[in-house]
Amino acid sequence: MSEKPRTEPARGMRDFLPEDIRRREHVIGVIKRVYERYGFEPLETPAVENIETLLGKYGEEGNQLIFKILMRGEHEATGKADLALRYDLTVPLARVLAHHQAKLPRLFKRYQIQPVWRADRPARGRFREFYQCDVDTCGSASPVVEAELCAAVSDVLTELGFNDFVIRINHRELLSALLLAADIAPEHQAQVLVTLDKLDKVGPGGVTKELTERGVGVESQDRLLAWLDAAAKLRLRPNDELDALEFCASYGNGRAALDNLRAIVQLTAAGSAAGKISVDPSLARGLSYYTGAIMEINVPDLAGSLGGGGRYDNLVGMFLGQSIPACGFSLGLERILVVMGERNMFPPSLATTPADVMVSAFDASGMAAAMTLAGQLRAAGLRVLVYPDPDKIGKQIKYADGRGIPFVALLGENEIKDGTVTVKNLAEQTQTTYGQSEAGPKILEDLKHRG
Amino acid sequence: MSEKPRTEPARGMRDFLPEDIRRREHVIGVIKRVYERYGFEPLETPAVENIETLLGKYGEEGNQLIFKILMRGEHEATGKADLALRYDLTVPLARVLAHHQAKLPRLFKRYQIQPVWRADRPARGRFREFYQCDVDTCGSASPVVEAELCAAVSDVLTELGFNDFVIRINHRELLSALLLAADIAPEHQAQVLVTLDKLDKVGPGGVTKELTERGVGVESQDRLLAWLDAAAKLRLRPNDELDALEFCASYGNGRAALDNLRAIVQLTAAGSAAGKISVDPSLARGLSYYTGAIMEINVPDLAGSLGGGGRYDNLVGMFLGQSIPACGFSLGLERILVVMGERNMFPPSLATTPADVMVSAFDASGMAAAMTLAGQLRAAGLRVLVYPDPDKIGKQIKYADGRGIPFVALLGENEIKDGTVTVKNLAEQTQTTYGQSEAGPKILEDLKHRG
Repeated sequence: MSEKPRTEPARGMRDFLPEDIRRREHVIGVIKRVYERYGFEPLETPAVENIETLLGKYGEEGNQLIFKILMRGEHEATGKADLALRYDLTVPLARVLAHHQAKLPRLFKRYQIQPVWRADRPARGRFREFYQCDVDTCGSASPVVEAELCAAVSDVLTELGFNDFVIRINHRELLSALLLAADIAPEHQAQVLVTLDKLDKVGPGGVTKELTERGVGVESQDRLLAWLDAAAKLRLRPNDELDALEFCASYGNGRAALDNLRAIVQLTAAGSAAGKISVDPSLARGLSYYTGAIMEINVPDLAGSLGGGGRYDNLVGMFLGQSIPACGFSLGLERILVVMGERNMFPPSLATTPADVMVSAFDASGMAAAMTLAGQLRAAGLRVLVYPDPDKIGKQIKYADGRGIPFVALLGENEIKDGTVTVKNLAEQTQTTYGQSEAGPKILEDLKHRG
Repeated sequence: MSEKPRTEPARGMRDFLPEDIRRREHVIGVIKRVYERYGFEPLETPAVENIETLLGKYGEEGNQLIFKILMRGEHEATGKADLALRYDLTVPLARVLAHHQAKLPRLFKRYQIQPVWRADRPARGRFREFYQCDVDTCGSASPVVEAELCAAVSDVLTELGFNDFVIRINHRELLSALLLAADIAPEHQAQVLVTLDKLDKVGPGGVTKELTERGVGVESQDRLLAWLDAAAKLRLRPNDELDALEFCASYGNGRAALDNLRAIVQLTAAGSAAGKISVDPSLARGLSYYTGAIMEINVPDLAGSLGGGGRYDNLVGMFLGQSIPACGFSLGLERILVVMGERNMFPPSLATTPADVMVSAFDASGMAAAMTLAGQLRAAGLRVLVYPDPDKIGKQIKYADGRGIPFVALLGENEIKDGTVTVKNLAEQTQTTYGQSEAGPKILEDLKHRG
C-alpha cells in the first residue's frame, strides 16, 4: 500500500510497553496479595455482556457511554447491537451472584481487577479503557465488613508506600439526619447533597451560591456550613468528629448511623487504618445506590480520590430479585499509578531491564555453547538474553548497555575451549573470568550488591 | 420486575469463579516466569482496535468473525462500526512495532498474554473469548531464535508437569523442496499442503484419496507417502530424520532449510527440549504467512496441539512497510488447562480455600478483638477471614468447614480476658489454646505439615 496506515491505538486507549506493565503489575500484585490476606477471592467475568444485562443500569448518561457490539453475519446489516463491553464490575458481580447462586457461599468476599470500557471524552487521566480494582463483601450487614474494607485498602496503600492518605467516611442516613436538622425537607435533600459534595472543590462560597439557587434558606445554609466547619476542625479525630455530630441522633435514622460509624471507627482502631480515618459529614459520593456507610480515600496532591466505596444493600441482588447486604470499595489503579509515578514511589528493582545478563558468542559456531551457558545461568535464577546474531562484540555490548542489562557473559574461542566465561560488569567496566558452572552464583551475588 | 432477567454470560464466554482463576493464574504465572527468564518482556495492547487495523488481516473468514463496535452518539443510528475487538495478538504487535518504533529496541522479545475475541460458533473447548499466550522475537533471523522458543516452551510445559509432549518442527522451504522432489509443481503445492496437514487425522488412505481428487499423480503420491512414512519411523531422532530428508537438498531452497533445521536441533540439544524434538515433514500448519521453520506441540491425549508457531519474516513489519525478521510461538492456554484438569496436574496447594484460618467471635462485643487477632495472624503470613456476624458458633464453624478453611480461631469471653485464642483444627477435630501472639506461627507450622 502506498499510504501509511494509522498505527495509533484506538482513541482514549493505551498500549502498555514493558516498563508500564512492570509498574502496573507491581501495584496489582500488592492489591491482590493484600485482598487475599483478608479472605477475598478472585472473580473474573467476560469483557462482553449481553446488552440487556448492562442497559438501564447506569442511568441515561451511562447508556450513552456503553460500547455496543454489532450483531454478526446476516444481522450485521440491521445495525443493531446484541452485546456490549463491560462498563463496571458491579453489574457483572450482581449477574454472577444470581447465575452461580448454587455454587457461591452466602457470605461471598470477592475481588475483581479487570478493565472496563466507557465511551467518555478522553482527557488527562481519563481513558476509554481502564482498570477497576473492586473488592466487595456480599451477605453481611455487620460493620466488620466496612472496617475490614478500610483496613485492607489501608494495607494496600501502606504497602505501596503511601503514608499521607486519609480515609474519609460518612453515612447516607447521617447525611439525611444532618439535612433534616438543618430544616431541609427530604424532597430537596438529593439536590443539596450534590451541592455539598462539591465543598472541597468550590469552597463554602460556591456551596452557598448554589444552595441559594436551589431555594435553600439562609438559616439552613448557615447551620449546615457551621456544622461542616466544626467537623473539619476535628479532622482525623473520628471519635471527636462523631461527638460533634451527636445532635443528629434526634433526626431520622441518625442514631443508627452514628452508632454504625462509631462501630466502624472502633473496629479499625488496631490496624493500619488507625489514624487515617476521618468522619467527614460533607462526603456525599454521587452515586445514589449507597444505603449506609460511604468512604473515600484522598491524598493531598491529587484533586480526585484514590478510591471510594460504601454499603449498597439493594444493588447486587438486582438479578436475583432480592436484597443482599453488600459493601464494596473500588481502588483507582490509574490514579494510584499517576501519583506513584509523580512521587517516584516505584521500587528501583522495577527498573526496566529485559534481563540480568546477556550471553554473547563471538561467532555462529559459539551459539550452542552460548545456549548451554544460558541454561546454566537460568537454572541459577537469572533472567538471561542470548544475543542471537554473530555481530561484532562491540555492537553486542552496546545493545546490552542500551537496554540496561548489567552483565554480559562473553564466550570466545578460549572460553569455550577452557569451559570458562568472561563476565563483563557494564556499569563498573570490569571483567572477570569464571568457570561456566560458577558464573551464575557469582553474577547473582554481584546483582544483590547492586541493590 | 416480574420476569426474571437472563443471567448467563454472553454466548461462548465464561465467568471464572475463584477456583478457575487460581488454576488459570497458576499456568499463566509459570508461562510468565519462564518467558521472563529468557529475556522476553511483557506487552499489553487495548482490547479494542480501530476497525481498519484489523479488517483485511485475517482473510474473508476472519473478517466475518471480528466483533465490531457500533459508532456512538449521533452516529449510532448509522449502524456503522468504527472499532473492533482484538482478534489475535500478532496484528497488535505489528501495530505497536510501527507506532512505538523509536522506543523499542531493534531486537525486541515480547510476550503477551491477553484475551482475544472471535465470533466463532461455540463448541466444546472453543470459546468466543479466550486467552492467547504469544511470545515473539522480532529483529533477528538467527536459528538461535527458534531454538530459544523451543527451549522456553519446553521449560513451560516441563514446569507445569508435562513430560510426554513432542515438539514437531518442519520448514516451509523443506516442504516446498519435498513437493518438488515428488514432482508436484509449485502452483499445486498450497493445496497439497492443506491435504498433507491432515495426515494425522485422516491417515494415508484419506490423504491419497484427497490428493487424487486434486489431480496429483499416483507416482508423486507414492513417493511422498513413502518419505513421510520413513521419517515417521525415525520419530524423536531429529538428526536421523534430517539425514533421511537429505535428498531434499537438491530441490528449491532445500539445502538452506535442512541446514536451518539442523542448527535448531543442535542448539536445543543442551536444554529441556532435548529429546522432545522431532522433525516431521508432514507438518504444514495452515497459516500461509510462515516463511521458515514451523513448530507444533502435541501430547498423546489431545487431538489438537498445545501450541504452535514459526518464523514469519513478512508479517510484523506490515504497518511499517518493511520486512522485519520474526519468529513466534503461541501456547493454547485453554487446552493446557483442559489437559491439566483431566490429568489432575494442578498442585494440591491450589485447592480452593478462601483463607487459611477463620476468626470467630462469640458476640458483637468480641469483634474488635477478632479484628486485632486477624491483624496479628495476617502479619504472620496467614490468609484470614473474619466471620463478620455474631452467629452461633456452630453456624460459624459450619461455614468454615463448608468453605474448606482448615482452622478456626475462636475468641470467647475467657480468651479475650486472658489474651488467648482457641484454635480448632477442623480436619483433625482437635483444639488448642494459644497466647494470641503465638497463634500465627503455630497455625503456619500446622499448615505446612498438612502439605
